[in-house]
Amino acid sequence: MRIPTYVRRSLLVGLIVSTLASAAAFAQSKAAPPKAKPTYAEILATATPADWRTLDLENTLYMDLASGRVVIELNAAYAPAHAANIRTLVREGYFDGLTILRSQDNYVAQWGDPEADSAEPGKARAMKQGKSSLAAEYTRPIDSKLAFTRLPDIDGYAAQVGFSNGFPVGRNPKTNQTWLAHCYGMVGAGRGNDDTSGSGAELYVVTGHAPRHLDRNITLLGRIVQGMPLLSVLPRGTGALGFYEKPEQRVPIKSIRIAVDVPAAERTNLDVIRTDTRLFTSLVEALRNRGGTWYKVPAGHIELCNMPIAVRPAGGK
Amino acid sequence: MRIPTYVRRSLLVGLIVSTLASAAAFAQSKAAPPKAKPTYAEILATATPADWRTLDLENTLYMDLASGRVVIELNAAYAPAHAANIRTLVREGYFDGLTILRSQDNYVAQWGDPEADSAEPGKARAMKQGKSSLAAEYTRPIDSKLAFTRLPDIDGYAAQVGFSNGFPVGRNPKTNQTWLAHCYGMVGAGRGNDDTSGSGAELYVVTGHAPRHLDRNITLLGRIVQGMPLLSVLPRGTGALGFYEKPEQRVPIKSIRIAVDVPAAERTNLDVIRTDTRLFTSLVEALRNRGGTWYKVPAGHIELCNMPIAVRPAGGK
Repeated sequence: MRIPTYVRRSLLVGLIVSTLASAAAFAQSKAAPPKAKPTYAEILATATPADWRTLDLENTLYMDLASGRVVIELNAAYAPAHAANIRTLVREGYFDGLTILRSQDNYVAQWGDPEADSAEPGKARAMKQGKSSLAAEYTRPIDSKLAFTRLPDIDGYAAQVGFSNGFPVGRNPKTNQTWLAHCYGMVGAGRGNDDTSGSGAELYVVTGHAPRHLDRNITLLGRIVQGMPLLSVLPRGTGALGFYEKPEQRVPIKSIRIAVDVPAAERTNLDVIRTDTRLFTSLVEALRNRGGTWYKVPAGHIELCNMPIAVRPAGGK
Repeated sequence: MRIPTYVRRSLLVGLIVSTLASAAAFAQSKAAPPKAKPTYAEILATATPADWRTLDLENTLYMDLASGRVVIELNAAYAPAHAANIRTLVREGYFDGLTILRSQDNYVAQWGDPEADSAEPGKARAMKQGKSSLAAEYTRPIDSKLAFTRLPDIDGYAAQVGFSNGFPVGRNPKTNQTWLAHCYGMVGAGRGNDDTSGSGAELYVVTGHAPRHLDRNITLLGRIVQGMPLLSVLPRGTGALGFYEKPEQRVPIKSIRIAVDVPAAERTNLDVIRTDTRLFTSLVEALRNRGGTWYKVPAGHIELCNMPIAVRPAGGK
């Protein structure tokens, strides 16, 4: 098959891993072949239970669409006020029955209340305990207690880049700031021109090449752990900025719920690869300079937004 | 509207430009406002006819799907043998009635003959004059006669990056090599493990975050100038690497034709912004440090694959 091979950014392992593990074991049983550089998949197959973490149920959202479930992990370390407000809005049922309003090619999909800015009284969906305005959480102070696995390579948008508990982040030691980065699948809180005009009631997800120029300009608060294809294939809106021009083009959201509030039998239990381990460092190196037979020239580099964060059913089952 | 604003990568201007031009003119007629940094759209609105080039009909392909037309510009400077072979295959009607076989989320869509590798005689679609194997065209020598507008910023995958006649490219003066870069919308020739196993009969397009680690490992030969959303929203295949598991999931290609062979009335005549002009340099700067009221922190950087190449109907009509 004449194809470029690749490891998907959010790779659901399981069968694939076991197949590759068998292949690797078989290769090792042969007598003294030249020691090939292990591939990403081969290294991932060696992960132990300690290399995975289970998603925190209180910081996991399920957005259920007719096409399936999108699983979102909130980041309460980088955007505590937004994460808390979203949890409040979710528990009020604020999002249930709202719609995806916008899909702009190679950029973002966005959902929320189409009448949020309506001047007509009673048009906009009411909030109960949720807040309609929050202080920006574009950056936060660097804190030694906050995990950070730095990537070894340069980045054009930040002095340092790496991962903090599975999230892509930038850092600037000179300003003591760190921030979440706009990689594929990252979720943020839309805002107007005013820094305090966002609240998390209107959310967007990056569906194209990383718009890193948005970093430090808008509050990111989570990432999509599973279900990106349900959003990335949405028809592009033909209005300005990819907004759907006709209400019937909008995609209904059945509900958004917090995982801990969902009956255990209805949960999507997932493990995510830890990013503060030796295994993760090996995975990074496997993609910086790829093994296998297909690649001819190693990149010698990995860009922040090209590093996949592996996902599997909880417990590897 | 609480939204991150953005200029689309392949922005079809026209009405938008004229609206912005009026707005800019209006702003200038007011007495002594603080001189705001012009935005990308404002600069683009000042483009003269000399800032645009018309697509070369001999190097433009129309891939017609049931959903519409995809316009592809071939790059005969970087991949002359592949571009020539694809033109031969197109004129043989090789692609007509074949299908899109693969759509892998955040990576590529791919089309060609599903039976290309079939061992069964007569299964694979026959080629007449087209070649089924070509020498790789991963890189080419730097040539002072080949246009190159260098971006001012660092890049992790190449010593230098910039644009050559509208195409994103990398360069390494030490090795005297230059190459096309895997940005969103770039089209390449799938291959197996062997460097000569590609021919252009099986094509892929980047539909996700730029997989720049593929640079110099596979032959890129063109880019999609218009119609990306027709490919980027295709349902993701559920087989390995995003291949469609059932033949009926594949997306039929009505035809691929060279623009010059298409009756004038059926052509999609497009202009593309030139990348060797002062205007283009100003457009780059407008996105490195964005004007307008929305952005709070300028990026001070633009990544190669985040630079849009504007497109408009030929002649601006």
